Amino acid sequence: MTIETTVELEGHIIDSGIMQRAFGIIMDMGGTFHVEQFDVGTHKNETTYCRMTVSAESEGLLLPILHELHQNGATITEPTDATLEPSPSSKVVPRGFYSTTHHPTDILYEGEWISVENIEMDTAIVVDPTTKTASTKVLTSVDENDLIVTGEAGIRVKPPSRPRDSSSGPFGFMQGGVSSERPSESLIKKIAETIKATKKQGGKILVVPGPAVIHSGAGDDLSRLVQKGYVDMISAGNGFAVHDIERNLYGTSLGMNITTLAHPRKGHKHHIYTISEIVRAGSIKDAVEQKIITGGVMYECITNNIPYVLAGSIRDDGPLPDTITDTIKAQNAIREQTQKADLVLMLSTLLHSVAIGNCLPSTTPTVCVDINPATVTQLLDRGSSHAVGVVTDVGMFIPRLAQALLDE
Amino acid sequence: MTIETTVELEGHIIDSGIMQRAFGIIMDMGGTFHVEQFDVGTHKNETTYCRMTVSAESEGLLLPILHELHQNGATITEPTDATLEPSPSSKVVPRGFYSTTHHPTDILYEGEWISVENIEMDTAIVVDPTTKTASTKVLTSVDENDLIVTGEAGIRVKPPSRPRDSSSGPFGFMQGGVSSERPSESLIKKIAETIKATKKQGGKILVVPGPAVIHSGAGDDLSRLVQKGYVDMISAGNGFAVHDIERNLYGTSLGMNITTLAHPRKGHKHHIYTISEIVRAGSIKDAVEQKIITGGVMYECITNNIPYVLAGSIRDDGPLPDTITDTIKAQNAIREQTQKADLVLMLSTLLHSVAIGNCLPSTTPTVCVDINPATVTQLLDRGSSHAVGVVTDVGMFIPRLAQALLDE
Amino acid sequence: MTIETTVELEGHIIDSGIMQRAFGIIMDMGGTFHVEQFDVGTHKNETTYCRMTVSAESEGLLLPILHELHQNGATITEPTDATLEPSPSSKVVPRGFYSTTHHPTDILYEGEWISVENIEMDTAIVVDPTTKTASTKVLTSVDENDLIVTGEAGIRVKPPSRPRDSSSGPFGFMQGGVSSERPSESLIKKIAETIKATKKQGGKILVVPGPAVIHSGAGDDLSRLVQKGYVDMISAGNGFAVHDIERNLYGTSLGMNITTLAHPRKGHKHHIYTISEIVRAGSIKDAVEQKIITGGVMYECITNNIPYVLAGSIRDDGPLPDTITDTIKAQNAIREQTQKADLVLMLSTLLHSVAIGNCLPSTTPTVCVDINPATVTQLLDRGSSHAVGVVTDVGMFIPRLAQALLDE
Amino acid sequence: MTIETTVELEGHIIDSGIMQRAFGIIMDMGGTFHVEQFDVGTHKNETTYCRMTVSAESEGLLLPILHELHQNGATITEPTDATLEPSPSSKVVPRGFYSTTHHPTDILYEGEWISVENIEMDTAIVVDPTTKTASTKVLTSVDENDLIVTGEAGIRVKPPSRPRDSSSGPFGFMQGGVSSERPSESLIKKIAETIKATKKQGGKILVVPGPAVIHSGAGDDLSRLVQKGYVDMISAGNGFAVHDIERNLYGTSLGMNITTLAHPRKGHKHHIYTISEIVRAGSIKDAVEQKIITGGVMYECITNNIPYVLAGSIRDDGPLPDTITDTIKAQNAIREQTQKADLVLMLSTLLHSVAIGNCLPSTTPTVCVDINPATVTQLLDRGSSHAVGVVTDVGMFIPRLAQALLDE
Repeated sequence: MTIETTVELEGHIIDSGIMQRAFGIIMDMGGTFHVEQFDVGTHKNETTYCRMTVSAESEGLLLPILHELHQNGATITEPTDATLEPSPSSKVVPRGFYSTTHHPTDILYEGEWISVENIEMDTAIVVDPTTKTASTKVLTSVDENDLIVTGEAGIRVKPPSRPRDSSSGPFGFMQGGVSSERPSESLIKKIAETIKATKKQGGKILVVPGPAVIHSGAGDDLSRLVQKGYVDMISAGNGFAVHDIERNLYGTSLGMNITTLAHPRKGHKHHIYTISEIVRAGSIKDAVEQKIITGGVMYECITNNIPYVLAGSIRDDGPLPDTITDTIKAQNAIREQTQKADLVLMLSTLLHSVAIGNCLPSTTPTVCVDINPATVTQLLDRGSSHAVGVVTDVGMFIPRLAQALLDE
Repeated sequence: MTIETTVELEGHIIDSGIMQRAFGIIMDMGGTFHVEQFDVGTHKNETTYCRMTVSAESEGLLLPILHELHQNGATITEPTDATLEPSPSSKVVPRGFYSTTHHPTDILYEGEWISVENIEMDTAIVVDPTTKTASTKVLTSVDENDLIVTGEAGIRVKPPSRPRDSSSGPFGFMQGGVSSERPSESLIKKIAETIKATKKQGGKILVVPGPAVIHSGAGDDLSRLVQKGYVDMISAGNGFAVHDIERNLYGTSLGMNITTLAHPRKGHKHHIYTISEIVRAGSIKDAVEQKIITGGVMYECITNNIPYVLAGSIRDDGPLPDTITDTIKAQNAIREQTQKADLVLMLSTLLHSVAIGNCLPSTTPTVCVDINPATVTQLLDRGSSHAVGVVTDVGMFIPRLAQALLDE
Repeated sequence: MTIETTVELEGHIIDSGIMQRAFGIIMDMGGTFHVEQFDVGTHKNETTYCRMTVSAESEGLLLPILHELHQNGATITEPTDATLEPSPSSKVVPRGFYSTTHHPTDILYEGEWISVENIEMDTAIVVDPTTKTASTKVLTSVDENDLIVTGEAGIRVKPPSRPRDSSSGPFGFMQGGVSSERPSESLIKKIAETIKATKKQGGKILVVPGPAVIHSGAGDDLSRLVQKGYVDMISAGNGFAVHDIERNLYGTSLGMNITTLAHPRKGHKHHIYTISEIVRAGSIKDAVEQKIITGGVMYECITNNIPYVLAGSIRDDGPLPDTITDTIKAQNAIREQTQKADLVLMLSTLLHSVAIGNCLPSTTPTVCVDINPATVTQLLDRGSSHAVGVVTDVGMFIPRLAQALLDE
Repeated sequence: MTIETTVELEGHIIDSGIMQRAFGIIMDMGGTFHVEQFDVGTHKNETTYCRMTVSAESEGLLLPILHELHQNGATITEPTDATLEPSPSSKVVPRGFYSTTHHPTDILYEGEWISVENIEMDTAIVVDPTTKTASTKVLTSVDENDLIVTGEAGIRVKPPSRPRDSSSGPFGFMQGGVSSERPSESLIKKIAETIKATKKQGGKILVVPGPAVIHSGAGDDLSRLVQKGYVDMISAGNGFAVHDIERNLYGTSLGMNITTLAHPRKGHKHHIYTISEIVRAGSIKDAVEQKIITGGVMYECITNNIPYVLAGSIRDDGPLPDTITDTIKAQNAIREQTQKADLVLMLSTLLHSVAIGNCLPSTTPTVCVDINPATVTQLLDRGSSHAVGVVTDVGMFIPRLAQALLDE
């Protein structure tokens, strides 16, 4: 017996690779397809439309295929309203709930497509029938009786198309490619232009710095960027803040291990003394007010009212009183930042960048700088439409970026 | 003006590199030395004794030198009692508190050397005058009026000497070298012998597995090791447990990204469905009792009463109800495990292994298995006396280890 | 002024990504396109046909676009004969000569499409007007008056389509994906089946082993595979052979440096003594006949008449008399091997694998085993149609493969 | 039965780790020792003297211990003349020939210690009885009847001591540590000072650049350094020269693959066209004279009479006519460069740097710059006395170095 369904794909589906991925999914998962209509975009401003019947030998085979197609932008023809089921109790989702992608998503509710707010991967969609709005909730935030979307009917996912004209606009260069002529220099200039354009449009810039920013000597230049208004939010870990403050208090930072730049060894007295000074003062803000801290990135954040999130980890010393030790609360704080961000700069921190990336919609432009190409690849490999990776030494990147933004 | 102090070093200080390190510290930090007595161990069972005067041009130069010498095993001649100061308030240590190393440490209290319990890096030493005992406390655990050791007087640190006879005993091979003949095979046999010897002596084995254990298909063999009593404690993250259970519930685990083996991408439905099933059940134990989970590593832990710690992270999905989301609580839970452990197996998880390593005394034997040599190097580079690194595929290592322990 | 040309693409051009790449090339390089005909393959056994007009504002802009399209499988409509020009002198190609891809290629010669023999990247195509055949020549092999294809007219490149049915046939699994269930074990079984199937069809297996094969203790098992006829040719470097023979002569191999497994340090006496013994004997063959060498991979090659190429490098000690020290001669020897090979196994050697890969047609199935994922990624990233990467410890992979081929 | 020998060690043997290594060798290899005399250097300008009896249960056990001790600086008490044996035929060394380390070495010839010229690892020592001199020869250069040192008698090896005062002199900072304050910037300044000091003393600077220098856009700044006299010799591969010239001829260089920066993919037309242009011209020099090449690093080498070695590899395209395709000849050319060099700069090329390192005495100061920490570690891990590693982006390092040398 053969089961079949008709699905549609529309957009720049060939040059975005969506069409290729769709054919791949069907064949890899044991299905077959019959293309019924295919209107190719004849030039670069036209979209392509494809309608095809997908079939498999059993419903058990067909459903996962449709799920995967769906997550990659296919819609079922003649859609019906999304199915809603109430949550049986706090933190518990109904069986078969729809788990989101990080792409823009609509659901069909009472015959109308409504956009899902705060889109983020691996969340549930909760509908508010009073306001007729839909938004995402992570499992730990689900309340009893929340109306949760289940199944895959009435859901429309829109993976970002590759912009057809890569030369225009400040984000035009964000196609993953690295220009061949003086790549580091030219990339930094383009990133500086993008930052300026974002600020000009009133956008917010979220910076995600790792401890290597301090070890590599780029702390002063990041401080200048905070001071001059080029950083709207900072998302970091306990380690970044401690190293930044240690440098201000003791003029040192942990000795770098040349083979493991990003993971300095524990065991240095100044590090733990820095923490105990801030604990004694009460908080970073208190330590700034008590003139214990007199400079550095955290100092500039306090002085210029730049909000920051310091997320805790089981590898932390201390931690500082400002560090959010509950990982769920820390995730929620990060989530607030990512939903506000119009541009994200990930600076030499795989771990925090992954956490940020988990909460980011696929449409937020992201710049990822790391000396390890595997880190850059991993962070870019998330289907974002606007993302650029720079494999370089953050200790030379930030000073050069500061120069491009402040001195030129 | 020249300030000077006399220090002593004793033990296998030449072949352990302690003497070399001491001379290096003095010269690097701008001091000079005059060796007054040097009794070399004339053969391999005798220890060496060195007494020397260390001098520098100011106290500001001399003190950091003495601190570093001290952390590396030198003691000040004619020691006085350790200085004690009460903690001014909860979580606040007195200024100038002594920050511990991970080496065995004694303090001189009322004229007698007492051993510091639960030694661990970067902690304070708290003395209980009633019981005349000393133990470590992390900053967040310090209570008001705790008597805390400050300065460096009356403290004796004993970095582990390299055992002079490497051929004897089950831990004899743990010298970092990798034998040239069939290294993987021969190493696995020696590790199996060490595990057996540890168990025979009533020792406890702590296993620290990463998600790659499941992805690489080694879950079944680790389950067998738990079932057969070769694992006494497990320390892992939310991700490990979810992948282990997902494999049992859905027969799948996250698709591996070949370039980033250890960091699979998010976005797979079964992963989040697994979490929601366990949330619904109540806990992993509840899910086992409700026969939702019927096999796997976590199942064997529940069934065989093997305690586990699942430590949370800001990168977690869910998390599972069993995951400790507060990082301070999670660290404390890890600390309890590490203090009990007589042998630690770190299996393909840099992040949890670093957290474990932060809490481990330098005397606990450790085996670290990872496919990435940088990870192995980083984890071994902590001055432990008994540590062995195996750069191999954990998916082939665990089955072979299980075979050596169970089938041969 | 706008210049335009019509090009055609045909085959499984959507699911192979060729269509996507074509659109990407045009847009990235500043051109525009107008799709005139697009007949989509409606199910998985039908091919897709696309005819489009590509235009740009100048010939200087259009030509590079057409070149790139061409290298990726597009053909100019209404083809004319390929242009031929005689080589002006030995090793010198005419200006504008056509530089090949590694994909199967035809040229139109006197109105008929003829296939280019021994296809390989970055070579010239030489036509023999007597036999009406075409074949590749590297620049150093070009003779005066060779008739060389120039420009891009009359050339047809066929990048491999992704096989539409991945489940059938022994090469079906070679799609780059790694199965989630016991990946190492299941992959090894599939590779063993592929090797058996290749041998059954009379195919030749080329093995490219690095020194790590010996260091990791897998030399004995590779010897068995040679002895039992599963290896038809070996392509290696001086280092591999020296380590293999050293192990036989002295029972040792260079101590492994744990951080740089593949690059053991120099300076070990046995290594240089091994070389001097073979120099004294005359050659590896002489040393086998004089019973100096009594076992190992090279011994089995000599005993079983398995041809090998040992290619020299500036990093070599010695080298052995068998090592081809001229890199052009060595490349030509490798070239002979790659043209004969029906399956290539690259075992833990980036450098030799890259050299082999440079000479391989994109249609030769390749298995690449390395503990470093970056190496595997780099070697697979060559547009081969049948290539599989295994990120594992070669010291455990080869014994398991030998077991699967010989003992099961 | 116990066999014993007395050995002596002298110098800064404790703080250089030589004493520790000696004890370790004896114990690891199954011997015992009895220290008979030990005069410790009581302050940092005095050397230490140790005389000890080393014993083992058989000569078969003792000899390898003595060999290893010997290679690490121990001398046998009451030395006799070095044993000399004539080479039986060209390229063949006598059995038991002494294989050199890369440390300064003397031999006792007719009762006098003479220094071995052109010391280099893994070579034979050849004595000229006429001139009473000794020098190294690689195996392939040995002539019939060369008088070659065998055994270990009468040989004195001097591993470099760690300089006791690290603060003085331009090479003072070359101790492997990386300063914590603005490390990249401060290191570059110190390297610039070292280069200036070397030039001032009439020393020669050997630069070893990889293709990444060109890809990362640093070619212009390296050209300036050649032009201004800061580069005395260049040692590179075919790839470096081709990319440098391609950039001058076509304004492009191979597209960088972000995950494998150092190993760009083949298959780019300009690359092979560049080679064919130079082949047509005759050589790089001819192409400069014919005004085909008008700028770049190779251009400046030709114009300023800076000698270069382009060593061939089996991975080369072409190669250029200037590339030395015979690896033995290329090694000999490299050897000439390394023996003349007073300072070596290795810039982002593991392969050529290893070849250079194989020929370098342990006393030549070396700076190694690479974005991959494993590469830096491997290249530094050779027991050189003066070596510094910089983990950074060569594309930002060279411009900054040029600025420090030329513009400040």
